[in-house]
Amino acid sequence: MEFSTENKFARRMDGVPRSFIREILKVAISPDIISFAGGLPNKDFFPMEELRDCAMKLMSGTDRNIFQYANTEGYLPLRQKIAERYAQKGLKIDPANILITNGSQQGLDLLGKIFINEGDPVLIEEPGYLGAIQAFSIFKPQFVTIPLRETGIDVALFKEKIELHQPKIAYLIPNFQNPSGISYSESVRKEIANSCSKKQIFLVEDDPYGDIRFKGVAKHSLHHYLPDRTILLGTFSKTVVPAFRMGWIVAPDEVMEKLIIAKQAADLHTDYFTQRLVHQYLSDYNIDEHISRICATYGKQAAAMLNAMEKYFPKEVKYTTPEGGMFLWVTLPEGQDALQVFDLAIKENVAFVPGNPFYVDKANVNTLRLNFSCSNEAETEEGIRRLGNVLKKIK
Amino acid sequence: MEFSTENKFARRMDGVPRSFIREILKVAISPDIISFAGGLPNKDFFPMEELRDCAMKLMSGTDRNIFQYANTEGYLPLRQKIAERYAQKGLKIDPANILITNGSQQGLDLLGKIFINEGDPVLIEEPGYLGAIQAFSIFKPQFVTIPLRETGIDVALFKEKIELHQPKIAYLIPNFQNPSGISYSESVRKEIANSCSKKQIFLVEDDPYGDIRFKGVAKHSLHHYLPDRTILLGTFSKTVVPAFRMGWIVAPDEVMEKLIIAKQAADLHTDYFTQRLVHQYLSDYNIDEHISRICATYGKQAAAMLNAMEKYFPKEVKYTTPEGGMFLWVTLPEGQDALQVFDLAIKENVAFVPGNPFYVDKANVNTLRLNFSCSNEAETEEGIRRLGNVLKKIK
Repeated sequence: MEFSTENKFARRMDGVPRSFIREILKVAISPDIISFAGGLPNKDFFPMEELRDCAMKLMSGTDRNIFQYANTEGYLPLRQKIAERYAQKGLKIDPANILITNGSQQGLDLLGKIFINEGDPVLIEEPGYLGAIQAFSIFKPQFVTIPLRETGIDVALFKEKIELHQPKIAYLIPNFQNPSGISYSESVRKEIANSCSKKQIFLVEDDPYGDIRFKGVAKHSLHHYLPDRTILLGTFSKTVVPAFRMGWIVAPDEVMEKLIIAKQAADLHTDYFTQRLVHQYLSDYNIDEHISRICATYGKQAAAMLNAMEKYFPKEVKYTTPEGGMFLWVTLPEGQDALQVFDLAIKENVAFVPGNPFYVDKANVNTLRLNFSCSNEAETEEGIRRLGNVLKKIK
Repeated sequence: MEFSTENKFARRMDGVPRSFIREILKVAISPDIISFAGGLPNKDFFPMEELRDCAMKLMSGTDRNIFQYANTEGYLPLRQKIAERYAQKGLKIDPANILITNGSQQGLDLLGKIFINEGDPVLIEEPGYLGAIQAFSIFKPQFVTIPLRETGIDVALFKEKIELHQPKIAYLIPNFQNPSGISYSESVRKEIANSCSKKQIFLVEDDPYGDIRFKGVAKHSLHHYLPDRTILLGTFSKTVVPAFRMGWIVAPDEVMEKLIIAKQAADLHTDYFTQRLVHQYLSDYNIDEHISRICATYGKQAAAMLNAMEKYFPKEVKYTTPEGGMFLWVTLPEGQDALQVFDLAIKENVAFVPGNPFYVDKANVNTLRLNFSCSNEAETEEGIRRLGNVLKKIK
C-alpha cells in the first residue's frame, strides 16, 4: 500500500539536495577526461609505508585497548600533538578545548546542531564551501552572504551585516578558501576580529588547507585576535590521509561542553584505532617535512595551471592566484553560464565544478572551480588547453 | 565581557544532559572495584593478530586508494558481505539498501535527523536504550513508552499507542535488549509487524547483540515480517572490535535516499581504511567461529552471575535471564532507590548502572543494569556477593 510522503520525514530534510558535484560528475567517468573537478589530495603523497610501520607497531603490542570503546573527546596524546602544532604557530590551545571529529565535516554538523535554530542567521562567504552549506542547511538557517574579494571578505559589509542580522556564527575560511583559493589579508583578519569583539558572535574559522602554503607568508589565525570567540576546525585529511576522517574542533569551554554532548549522541567517538594510528605517525615521523613535499608539488602544479591559463584562456576570463590549498576560481565574462560551459567541456574531455553549489541563492552563475592537486604539469597544460578552446568557442 | 547565554545555542541542546553513566562512574575508578557498570565487549576476544595480518595485507599492496576519500554509502564489497550474512539468516537485503555508519549510534542520529520534527511522537521501550534516548532527544520528540515484559513489549498497548499517537518510528531492540536483556517472543514480533502493516510507521529494529546468542533459538527479525517498513541497525562493535565504529543501517529506498544526504552532510563517509580492514577480516577469517567463542564465554559468565544472584540476593529481588547479549536487569523491591543502592555499593567496591538513564520520564527508580561480558566467573561471584550484602542491609 502507498502512504503520503507528506510529514513522513522531518521538515529539515526538505530541499536538502543530493550532492551537486556527485550528480554532475556522473557524466565525467570516461578515462580520457582530464578532471579538475575533484577535491582530492594527491594520493602520491599518502605515507603508505610510514602508516604501515605505525600500524605494525601498534598492532604488535599488548595494548588491546587500541580496539576498545574510547572517550568522546578523543585520544588525549593526539589532542596534545595537535595543541603542540598550534603552539608552533603561536596559538596557545589547551588540549581540553580540542574535540576529535570525523573530519572537519562532522565539526560543521555538530556546530549546526548546537547553534542553529530554524531561521537563525548564519554568515557565510560567497562563494562558500559547499560542505558547510550542506551541513548547515539541514538545520534551516537564514544564510547571510558576504562576497569574497582578493583580500578576503569586505569588512565594511561584514560589519553592516552582523549589525543588521546579528548572526550567532560567521563561517570563514581565511586560508586558501574553498572554492576561491583566495586568502584573507592580515588587516582583514584583524578588522574582522575587532569588529566582533563586542558582539555576541562566534567566528568559525575552517582551516583545512592552512598547512598547504606554497607561496607568500603565513597570516595570523582569527584565534590569535579573538581567542575567546573563535572556533577552529582542522583536519589531517590534506596532510596525512583523507580516508581516516580525522579532524578536530577547537572551541571555548562553553561551546566544547555542548559539542561533547552532541558528539556523544552522534556517534560516541571517532574511530579510536585510527586516532592511535595518526598519533603514532605524528610521534614517529616528521609531518612538517612531509607537508613541505606536498607544498612543493602543489605549488608547481598550481603554477603550471596559471601559466596554461595565461596562454590558453581568452583575456576576458579572470581567475584567482592562490598561495596554497588545492583550488583556484575562474570568473567567465558576464552572462556566460558555467553549467553550459561544463556540458561543452565534457565533450572536449575536460571537467571542472561549475560555481553553482557554492552559492546559497544563485543559479546560472559565470564562475567555476579548478582543482590543481591531482594533475601533473603535463596533464594540467593539456586540460587547460582543452578548456581554453571551449571558452574561446563560446565567446 | 559577558553575554547572555539565552539564545546563544540552539533550543535542541536545552536539557540534553551529559552522559549520566559517564558522570556517575567518575566515582567508580578505584582498581578494587568490581564493575558491572560497563557496556564494553570483552577485549580478550579482539582478533588482534588477525586484524594485524589484514592490515599488513592491505597496507603492503599498491592500492593507494585505501587512504583516499570514498563514497558516502560505504565500501560496496563490505556491504555485500553484510548482505551475505543477512542471507544466511534468511533475510534478503540488497547491498544498495545498506549504508555504512560510525557505529549504530550514528544510525540513530541520522534517523533522528531525517524523521523527527520537534514534538513528533517516537515510540520506545521502557526501559529503553540510553544511546537512542540521547540521540533522539536532540531532535526533541515526544517519547511514547511501552513497558517491556519477559516476552517483549505488550502488543495490545503497542497497538493502542500507535493508534493514539501515530508515531513515525518505533524504536525496538527485539534481541537481548539493552538494558533489560530480554528478547521478544516470535509471536510478539509477528503481532507487532501485523499491527503496523497498514499504518504509516517505520519499525527501527536495533540489533547490536543478535549474533551474541548463548541460549535458546534465534527468532525472526521484524524485517522478515515487514520488510518494506523495517529499518535495521547493525554493528561489528560486539563481534569484531568497537574502536572502529563500524555499523550500518538497512533501509527501504525512500529512507535510504534521505539517509545518504544526511550522512554526507554529517561526515562525508565513515573511515574508509577501517571499512577495508573489516572487509579483509571478513574475507580472510571465519567470523562465525569467532562469534561462537564469544558466545561460549559470555554464556558462562551470565550463568555465573545468575547462579551468584540466586545464592546471594534477597528473594524479593527480581532479575531477567537473558539468552544472549551483555546485560541483565534487576528489579529491587518497590520503594527502593537504585541510586541510593549505587552509593552504598561503591563503598563495598562493586558498581552497576542505576536504571535512571534508561527512562525518559522517571527518577528514583528501583531498577539497575548489570553487565556480564567483562568479568570472569570468579570476579562475578565475588561482585554479586558484595552487591547481595548491600541489598540485604537495605532491606
